[in-house]
Amino acid sequence: MFSLHPNLARDCLEVATLSACRLLLMNDSRHPWLILVPMREGLRDLDELTPEETAAVWTEIRLASRLLRDQFHPEKLNIASLGNLVPQLHIHIIARFTTDPDWPHPVWGRNPPLPYPPLEAEQLIKALRDYLLDASHTQDGLGCPVRMP
Amino acid sequence: MFSLHPNLARDCLEVATLSACRLLLMNDSRHPWLILVPMREGLRDLDELTPEETAAVWTEIRLASRLLRDQFHPEKLNIASLGNLVPQLHIHIIARFTTDPDWPHPVWGRNPPLPYPPLEAEQLIKALRDYLLDASHTQDGLGCPVRMP
Repeated sequence: MFSLHPNLARDCLEVATLSACRLLLMNDSRHPWLILVPMREGLRDLDELTPEETAAVWTEIRLASRLLRDQFHPEKLNIASLGNLVPQLHIHIIARFTTDPDWPHPVWGRNPPLPYPPLEAEQLIKALRDYLLDASHTQDGLGCPVRMP
Repeated sequence: MFSLHPNLARDCLEVATLSACRLLLMNDSRHPWLILVPMREGLRDLDELTPEETAAVWTEIRLASRLLRDQFHPEKLNIASLGNLVPQLHIHIIARFTTDPDWPHPVWGRNPPLPYPPLEAEQLIKALRDYLLDASHTQDGLGCPVRMP
């Protein structure tokens, strides 16, 4: 039975349940920052995914990337599976700007997160969900079933 | 015409040319650290890969992961595409240990690299190439054509 690691549940806001992954928004308004968590208990590293799971997760990384590009128009994406501190496999997809507070460094562990004001979080999550529901109707292979929590 | 970004050429040692990517060893003896560079000019982000390229690159990420696991027995892998400083798309695959000098932090930008002594580099690259040549004969989908520089 899959359950989200308590640190991810504490630090993130839930956006949607996709086919392979739970999609989270990092509650840090300094960066548009999504996290995908493959929904199989006990996973730690990307190479533990089966080839089928890999393909599904990769599709969702592309979906999350497109979502960030379309909603935020970043100059760069950072995509990473680190997990040195939180052992549950999770993949960061982060929109980066040359003007963001951590540029050009990686975002992890440099500055404390700055949580979204509650109304802003609510509006952002609604926008992300609307985008995903639209995307789930497209025919380009990125559409995948979306369930909102 | 693909050519390696000069910063990657300067900081890394060439291991092999795979089907989709050039495989490099970061010349930093503090971490067993491989880098895959997809061989299409002008790529910057993972989501610019076509679905076919994505599948090929993903196979090579799995191959590089297995190589690090079999040769170094790490406790964790860190896999990331950042590219804030070097604009040519490249993917880091890094073997991490709870005893390594940067644990549990990400490895980038914390400490200066410690280049391998030349003989050690030569021996390590030979071991990596031998592994890849063996892997290129397997039937599990991870074998892929390997060409040494």
